[in-house]
Amino acid sequence: MQFTWTRHHILALADWVPQEYDIVLQTASSFREVLSRRTKKVPALQGRVVTNLFFEPSTRTRSSFELAAKRLSADILNFSPGTSSITKGETILDTAKTYLAMGTDIMVIRHQQAGVPNAIAQEMDRLNTGVSVFNAGDGQHEHPSQALLDLFTITSLLDPENPRVELLRGKKIAIVGDILHSRVARSNIWSLTAAGAEVHLAGPPTLVPMLFASMGDRTHGGQLLLHWEIEPALQDAHFVMTLRLQKERMTEHLLPSLREYHQRYGITRDRLKLCQNDVKVLHPGPVNRGVEIDSDLMDDPALSLISEQVTNGVAVRMALLYLIGNLKAS
Amino acid sequence: MQFTWTRHHILALADWVPQEYDIVLQTASSFREVLSRRTKKVPALQGRVVTNLFFEPSTRTRSSFELAAKRLSADILNFSPGTSSITKGETILDTAKTYLAMGTDIMVIRHQQAGVPNAIAQEMDRLNTGVSVFNAGDGQHEHPSQALLDLFTITSLLDPENPRVELLRGKKIAIVGDILHSRVARSNIWSLTAAGAEVHLAGPPTLVPMLFASMGDRTHGGQLLLHWEIEPALQDAHFVMTLRLQKERMTEHLLPSLREYHQRYGITRDRLKLCQNDVKVLHPGPVNRGVEIDSDLMDDPALSLISEQVTNGVAVRMALLYLIGNLKAS
Amino acid sequence: MQFTWTRHHILALADWVPQEYDIVLQTASSFREVLSRRTKKVPALQGRVVTNLFFEPSTRTRSSFELAAKRLSADILNFSPGTSSITKGETILDTAKTYLAMGTDIMVIRHQQAGVPNAIAQEMDRLNTGVSVFNAGDGQHEHPSQALLDLFTITSLLDPENPRVELLRGKKIAIVGDILHSRVARSNIWSLTAAGAEVHLAGPPTLVPMLFASMGDRTHGGQLLLHWEIEPALQDAHFVMTLRLQKERMTEHLLPSLREYHQRYGITRDRLKLCQNDVKVLHPGPVNRGVEIDSDLMDDPALSLISEQVTNGVAVRMALLYLIGNLKAS
Repeated sequence: MQFTWTRHHILALADWVPQEYDIVLQTASSFREVLSRRTKKVPALQGRVVTNLFFEPSTRTRSSFELAAKRLSADILNFSPGTSSITKGETILDTAKTYLAMGTDIMVIRHQQAGVPNAIAQEMDRLNTGVSVFNAGDGQHEHPSQALLDLFTITSLLDPENPRVELLRGKKIAIVGDILHSRVARSNIWSLTAAGAEVHLAGPPTLVPMLFASMGDRTHGGQLLLHWEIEPALQDAHFVMTLRLQKERMTEHLLPSLREYHQRYGITRDRLKLCQNDVKVLHPGPVNRGVEIDSDLMDDPALSLISEQVTNGVAVRMALLYLIGNLKAS
Repeated sequence: MQFTWTRHHILALADWVPQEYDIVLQTASSFREVLSRRTKKVPALQGRVVTNLFFEPSTRTRSSFELAAKRLSADILNFSPGTSSITKGETILDTAKTYLAMGTDIMVIRHQQAGVPNAIAQEMDRLNTGVSVFNAGDGQHEHPSQALLDLFTITSLLDPENPRVELLRGKKIAIVGDILHSRVARSNIWSLTAAGAEVHLAGPPTLVPMLFASMGDRTHGGQLLLHWEIEPALQDAHFVMTLRLQKERMTEHLLPSLREYHQRYGITRDRLKLCQNDVKVLHPGPVNRGVEIDSDLMDDPALSLISEQVTNGVAVRMALLYLIGNLKAS
Repeated sequence: MQFTWTRHHILALADWVPQEYDIVLQTASSFREVLSRRTKKVPALQGRVVTNLFFEPSTRTRSSFELAAKRLSADILNFSPGTSSITKGETILDTAKTYLAMGTDIMVIRHQQAGVPNAIAQEMDRLNTGVSVFNAGDGQHEHPSQALLDLFTITSLLDPENPRVELLRGKKIAIVGDILHSRVARSNIWSLTAAGAEVHLAGPPTLVPMLFASMGDRTHGGQLLLHWEIEPALQDAHFVMTLRLQKERMTEHLLPSLREYHQRYGITRDRLKLCQNDVKVLHPGPVNRGVEIDSDLMDDPALSLISEQVTNGVAVRMALLYLIGNLKAS
């Protein structure tokens, strides 16, 4: 029995089911193959318009979405907040409606406030526009495409021919760092627990609050555990996900110093000896070398999946744009 | 007898004749149909270069031109003043000549000073370059594509199959707000009077000076009247065009307060009762909700044409780029 | 016997041989012909990704590279430093690796520090990435594509059908201005001396230091001479290259005033009488009119090659992208 993709927006992974993850993984896998060709384009979204509404600036993620859309042959519009009508007093919803009226088919939205993509998606549905909304990171809520590219990176490593969520059942995955402020951590908690993994969060008490203990999808055997020391999280871990540490956290008195953070929670070769022999390290980038992770370790392809993550990011975003774009056609 | 398009630049509507408007309306109508298709591209400007020289920043208008050019399959270059040679002391004309020498076919120019597009067009002609210049708004002079998309929006409503200027003969159209500083108002005055409409300007005396009384094209039955109260302008009006109110006007002591402005000149459901039953409201955007127009009224598709205007903006700009681009070919 | 193109990166002209220059000139010549067609595109880099990493902002040069890449049908990514991860503490090398991992085939790099493109190219080679690096100007080191477009402009004038370096043997070329800070001058010194030309540098002693006397490639008959007065450099010159004068030089006390600079080193019609009758003037742009060069002289097509240089810039960059892009294929 075939599961059919029906999701129109990519907003949050909190309510995704394993079959949805599997469709994304399979589709990304075929696009990853396209990317290895000399000519990396497919005409899937020819003549359609993907608009990047990045209210919070980001070159890296925007470039990844832009390249994914270009390789599907879509037309891209980039909204740049600096020179925009926002500064002229226009509401975010009115900005979105303007791009809707211009003929946008898919809106990729990043905003510093949680919930903005959802609010725009609701309005698009209410108006029966057929427009898909893609959350590219909203406040401290979710960053679904980052978690999906992490999932694809991990499962592709476990079975390159057939990445799928069941490969993660019982696997131990540590997520280390500033969990509290991380939309990447939140999205990963949903996807990894839904896949049946054993997820261990580790970081300073100020950044790993108890309220996280109730998160995650436990219906498929997934577990979530919290630690304020790094060692129990790393013990026998198959994968270690590190998070970017915002330097602002120190001025907010949530952290003593970067050096002390690195001493207690930084990923080093020594600490990785606690993990499985074939452990791999992930980081969503950009990395503060020597803070979240030792500099030489980051460059070691035997340990680091960071570069794979970036490459897979394009394939996964192609897959997601393709799935929501094709749905519209039917 | 067929009228042939011969205009090489789109600079100002002040000297346009009705037949020219009609060609634009017909061409935009066919492109509007293209935009409703799933694949919204035509190869009309394949291999040609459209350069956006936006000395005054604008995301909304630039996106509209960019999308129009992309849908005609042109290559687009965007000149961004922030990081440009302008700051290095280069003259505007030298910047334009640089983009000319790179191979630009059509230059879309926005500048805070009136006359800049004309000056560049003259230089392009003097040098026999064959390059077309498209004024995307120059100071308080003109914004032809905005007035043309307004004209297309109104005439398409009156006859969707065959929009043409004669449909406006004797129609009453109110333009409300800061007429003095508005290039949109000026371009609309030319197009609507040339179409034979009865145009009523309304706003505070500081923003609707008497010198406007002599404007407009009276050769085809068009009329222009000034009011310092809104009611006589709205009385029996078929269409109401509101203008964006720049908040700077208050610091310049031309306006008491936004609230008082709204009380005296804001468009409300109550005030619209003075108009024809099927009156429609237009606004060039971005809207200050609750200032120029009541917020809920703006979102009422039975009254507001604002979203239609944005959609038609792409079709009208495609039409204009197509007409001046094709002329070059002959 | 045919010389074959083997160069993978375009970093500096210091070690180029005449045959390499000739291949670029021939290839640019055929692309210049493409640019004169109505449809100016070729599918040479279809599906490949050219990323502009402009750490030092430049609209003019970036547009030229962007257009060159578009006309070869490549996909373009633009990295904008203002809104980038650089400000988030990421190293330049990590930024480059991120764009590598996204699938970049050719990186076009401009940076205010000399050596950055070389460092990135070394890393790309060390990692066996196959990625080509193109130096679009690094500090006061080199700006190869500018010197190559100058070479193409000069040799195309001497023989439009067959531009080649031997045409420059024994030709006298003056380079006037701020040699010290100019990467354009340095790249031109290498290309012009390698072509066997007699190169004369002229400018104030502060900006034409003696250490330049030893530069240049003397193996093919080229010569290099320094002057602190302009007259001996212009005497019988076939070509005069002027350089952009950065106004910062005055605050650094390297220059008395722009007026005095113009009086002593500015290019005027009077001064050009010292040169050959058919002398031509070049300038890399943007020009400070009335400083480096008289304003009316700049606009005289009988004397100025400035506009030709801009047009040829697109053709030469197409040629270089094509050559390094095609090499990768073999």
